Parts: sequence; C-alpha cells; structure tokens
Amino acid sequence: MYRLIAQDGCAKRGSFETVHGTIQTPVFMNVGTVGAIKGAVSTDDLKTLGTQVQLSNTYHLHVRTGDKLIKQFGGLHKFMVWDRPILTDSGGFQVFSLAGLRKIKEEGVYFQSHIDGHHIFMGPEESMEIQSNLGSTIAMAFDECPSSVAEKEYIQESVDRTTRWLERCKVKMAQLNAREDTVNPRQMLFGINQGGIYEDIRIEHAKRIAQMDLDGYAVGGLAVGESHEEMYRILDATVPYLPVDKPTYLMGVGTPANILEAVDRGVDFFDCVYPSRNGRHGHVYTKHGKINLFNKKHELDHRPIEEGCGCPACRSYSRAYIRHLLKAKEMLGMRLCVLHNLYFYNHLMEQIRDAIEEHRYKSFKKSMLEGFLSPEE
Amino acid sequence: MYRLIAQDGCAKRGSFETVHGTIQTPVFMNVGTVGAIKGAVSTDDLKTLGTQVQLSNTYHLHVRTGDKLIKQFGGLHKFMVWDRPILTDSGGFQVFSLAGLRKIKEEGVYFQSHIDGHHIFMGPEESMEIQSNLGSTIAMAFDECPSSVAEKEYIQESVDRTTRWLERCKVKMAQLNAREDTVNPRQMLFGINQGGIYEDIRIEHAKRIAQMDLDGYAVGGLAVGESHEEMYRILDATVPYLPVDKPTYLMGVGTPANILEAVDRGVDFFDCVYPSRNGRHGHVYTKHGKINLFNKKHELDHRPIEEGCGCPACRSYSRAYIRHLLKAKEMLGMRLCVLHNLYFYNHLMEQIRDAIEEHRYKSFKKSMLEGFLSPEE
Repeated sequence: MYRLIAQDGCAKRGSFETVHGTIQTPVFMNVGTVGAIKGAVSTDDLKTLGTQVQLSNTYHLHVRTGDKLIKQFGGLHKFMVWDRPILTDSGGFQVFSLAGLRKIKEEGVYFQSHIDGHHIFMGPEESMEIQSNLGSTIAMAFDECPSSVAEKEYIQESVDRTTRWLERCKVKMAQLNAREDTVNPRQMLFGINQGGIYEDIRIEHAKRIAQMDLDGYAVGGLAVGESHEEMYRILDATVPYLPVDKPTYLMGVGTPANILEAVDRGVDFFDCVYPSRNGRHGHVYTKHGKINLFNKKHELDHRPIEEGCGCPACRSYSRAYIRHLLKAKEMLGMRLCVLHNLYFYNHLMEQIRDAIEEHRYKSFKKSMLEGFLSPEE
Repeated sequence: MYRLIAQDGCAKRGSFETVHGTIQTPVFMNVGTVGAIKGAVSTDDLKTLGTQVQLSNTYHLHVRTGDKLIKQFGGLHKFMVWDRPILTDSGGFQVFSLAGLRKIKEEGVYFQSHIDGHHIFMGPEESMEIQSNLGSTIAMAFDECPSSVAEKEYIQESVDRTTRWLERCKVKMAQLNAREDTVNPRQMLFGINQGGIYEDIRIEHAKRIAQMDLDGYAVGGLAVGESHEEMYRILDATVPYLPVDKPTYLMGVGTPANILEAVDRGVDFFDCVYPSRNGRHGHVYTKHGKINLFNKKHELDHRPIEEGCGCPACRSYSRAYIRHLLKAKEMLGMRLCVLHNLYFYNHLMEQIRDAIEEHRYKSFKKSMLEGFLSPEE
C-alpha cells in the first residue's frame, strides 16, 4: 500500500494507497476537531486548499454528536461530505488532556466527559469500535500519552501497557472490519511509538511494534513540552527502527521549521492545530516567517498576506482589510487567515515533495529556514 | 438612471443604473455592518449568492476603522474588494439605537461612541462627508428615526427638522462630489420619508421631499415596533406620493412575507439583517417557511435545507451535518446557514422580478405566502 518513490538522505517521498484514494507524502493533515476545520472552513474549501487528508477527533465526535449516529448516517465521509482519506485519532490524547478525573487500569481508562461530566470508559476495544463506527480511512491505536516529565519507571510501565493495548487494538480492528455492517471494511490501523524522552525505551518499543506489521507507525508523545532539540534527538534515535516502507507519522507537529526538520529525519505524515489556531488569532505564515495582522503597520497595507500566494484570501484581499475584519471581530477575518495558513502548510508540503524527488532537500530546507528568519522589507 | 421596465398593479420592476453597474429591482441588499456580512461571508461569496447591492453601516465604519483611513485606501469598494453597488446608511439609525447619551439639536446629534464612550457630533454635513469618504454608490440622507410610540407633536417637529437636514445633505453632497479628491464623484443621494404611524404627516412629508429631485426615496422608521398591518397601511398611504420613476426603498424590512406585500405596494429596494441574523441562530428559510435546524428531528436528516436549492450549503451538505456543526458551536454551521438564507432572499427577489415582468405578481405572491404557511411533509 505504501510505495517509496524517492529518498533523499533520510527524507522519504512516498505514496500511500487507501480505499479513499492515494496520499502523496510528506503530507500535512488538516485537523477538523468535530468534523469541521475551526474557522468556518468546509470540506468544499479543503479541496480548494489542496488538502489530502482530514483528521478528525474521535473523542469529540464520540461525546458530541455520537459515533453511533454518524454510523447510522453512513459514516463520517458521508456525514461531512469528504471523499478523500480521513484519519481519526484514538481519543486517548483528549481523554488524557481534556477529560475530568481519570483512572488508568489495565483494561483501559475511566474518565468523565468534559461536556456534562458523565462517566465514560474507554479501552482499546472501545476506541476501535468508535473509529469503526466513524468509518475513517486510518484508525489510530489507543495508547497512553504520559506526561513528558513523568519518571522513567512510570514511562516504562506505561509503554508496556500501551504495547498490550496495541495488540488488543489489532485483534479488535480485524474483527470489526470483518463485520457485515461495518462502514469501512478496509479500515487501516497505525501503531504509536511512546517512551517519553528516553531513547532506550523509544528504541525498544519501536522494535517491538515494527514486528506487528501494521499499516503505519506514528511517533507520539512529542511536542508536549520538551524542547525542539529533544524532539529532534528522539526522532534521530527512533525513526531508524520504524519500517521505512510504511508511513511514518509525527503526531501533533508542528511549526513549518519542525516539519522541515522532521522530514529530514524520515517523517512523512504530520498534523497540527497551529495553522488554524494561529489563523483565528490573526497570525499568518509567510516565507519570511509568521506575521501578526493586528500590528498597526498593516493598517493601510495594500499587499496580500503573501505576494503570489494562490489561497482564496491572498487572491482577493489586502492585509489592511483582513486586519480591519479581525479588529472588528468579524468571523470572516478568522476564516481568511485560516484559509491562508492551511494553504501555506499544504503548499509547503508540495514543495517538500518536489525537493525530495529532485534530490535537493537539504538545500531546500536550508533556504526555507533562512527565509523564516529574515523578515520582509 | 431609473428605468421602469414593467408594472403589475402597484408592483414595480425597474433597472437602476449606477457608476458601479445596473441594479435590477425589486432588489434585496445584503447587509454588511462593518464591511463584511456577519457569518464569515466574503464579497467573493456574495457574487456566488447573486448579491447585487451590498449595504454598509456608516456609523460602524466611522467609529471602528475610520472612514478617513478607508478613503486613503481608495474607498470602500477597493477596501472590501467589491465592484458592484454599495449603499451606505446615514449613521443616524445606529446613533439613535446604539450610541450612549445623545442630544438632538438643530445642527445635528451629540452622542457617545458605543465602543469607547468618546464624544462625537454628527449632523447632515458630517454624515455626507463620512459617506463621501467611503465612496459608496448611494448615500442615505441623515434623518431622525423617532420612536414609534412618540407623540404626534414630537413626530411633526422631528419630521420638519429631518426635511431641513435633507436640504443640507443635498447641498453638501453636491459640494463633496465636486471636490477633486473625492472617491466617487457620482455618488447618489436618497431621501428618507418619516412620520411614524401618522398617515397625514407621512403624506405631507412625501410630497415635500418628492419635489427635491433626489436619486431615490426611502420609507424609514417602519419595522421598529408597529404591527405588520400598520406598516402596510402606511405604505398604502405614502408610496403613491413618492415618484414612481425613482427607486422606492423600504428600510430594514423584512420577512419574506413583508417583502412580498411591500413589493405589491410599489417598493423595490429592501434591506434587512434577518437572513444573516437568523442564519447565525440556525433558523433557515424554505418555501415551506422557516425551520430551526437545532430541532432534534433533523438529527439524521439526509436532506439539504431545501431540495433543489442552488446555494453552497444545499449543494453539498445535509441538515444533519449542519445541525451537528451548530450544536458543536462550529462557525462553519453559522456560515452555511447564512449562505443559504442570503441565497434564499436573493433568489426570492429574482422570482419576484420574473413574476412582475410576466404580469402574474398577485398569484405568485399568493402561492408563496400559502407555501410559507404549509409545513413540509
């Protein structure tokens, strides 16, 4: 399913065939928490922006509209009208970061809904069942994402449990895919590497899950408080132990610079809320770094956010107008910034793919990173 | 400039030539308070929705970004990237409804900004100057819109002052249009009929302003608390005294039924915040009346808001999905509802124009009104 088209150093240029079409990697997945990108962006818009994969949050869809209702509707693709791939997370990260009082046991996690406080249990089987109900293209394994400052002893214990959970996920997913009423009988499963900032635990875990012949492998539990240097060090140590002929997904990362560095270390799937979250706050990406449209110097700025950018915001509107909308708290201001930022990320990935194919990735990365640090005139 | 294409009873089908293109009437103007339609709708979207005229609020643009800055930018058309007609209100209505402590004098109105409380004076000359800075296609006269429950004596006094203000507006607008640095040297001025619910004052005032040879005439001060029957009675009495060969604009009205009735009484310009405001609350228009998408019965409703509707929401998305977005407080839910409602209004006006041209307006109106009252199966 995964085909390695080119390699340039450790950087991978691949194509990943799914039941919902082929993904060209490296790819940035656009995050739609509850089945919509925040900032009034629709799936129709995503097509305009060149989005290949949409990421939906299992936990939010479970506690809000309900995965059973979405299954009844015909699955998430039909519900949000998106025929390209969707990756769903396991719900675990939200359980660990959002939910109230929680207890982690061998069978799974007991917690309270962040909406109405009602008691929920989620274990590997429940997570797989919810993701199966949603019928996403790619399901993520249910794992524990321990605090980055947890003791090494706890991390080891947690990683061992996560491995046992992964085995249960694999068994359950096979059962669900075989069910007659399943939404997507060819749903895929990605495993997640954990181990905090401990290289030995990370490597040991990577070796164990690599043997399980999953559809793809993620590196989880990074970008949760450690420094960028630590993140790169963990990637340097861990990625070589994950199968090169499978997708390598760095969860929740990151800035354009993070992505450029991680691609150089063999990662080819990304997701992050930065482009939409920053956009909603008027922070927009350009090849000269991020700019803040609230800045008074843009008050009469006739230029688009970025000259030559093909996004719907830059094709029509000036910085001055978007700034005015943001200051007047008009939703349109946020929408235009989010459209631009998502386009920027998707376009960056396209440039990355070209650079790897043409074996000039190192120099491309260098020139991009230099550009981010040199403010426009 | 105004050409009467057809009449069917009192209903007028006209075309109104402006420096920014020709307006086909009856027309519904889409309200963009601060230079954007609320609900994350852009001027690019407005073209998709068939919007002919965009209405902007002078008061909001004056106190927020500032009309002087917009003039420096090249005017409102350039600022919000809209090459079709824009009508600006006078700012008067907002001064009377939003602003803090205000004092009405012969020279104009003293009031406080609703944003930071600073003291502002606005009279006919100031209103014309601000609208000239914005460079709208059509400027509205600065008038007083007295409370609908005001004493008759006060209404008469107020209407007399409004007439004197109108004369000053006309003089000032001519001066501003002649200035070398003016944004739009062919800016037009509409006068506004007032008189509360008193037919004799309304008629007397209509006669006086009709003699002033303005570019168009509005009926103001309605839809501010009186009943629909009173509104129709005032239109029946007043509209015959306004020039039939000029645009007739009923300000701030209204529901689809109100529009159908007012067209039948000779009105051919409308504006109202209902479609965008209702859309933001999940209330959407259909030929079977307004429906509330928050209603649980739409939870699994695969249908679009309206079968056969050509709007961007109905072309792609189901009621169930839009309901989910609204309940999850995703901006996209509001945006889709607002897009639908504006399209519905614009499409209604198109049907109205066809019906008048084909001299079947009475039966069209009847069948539409009956439809609104018969819920879908």
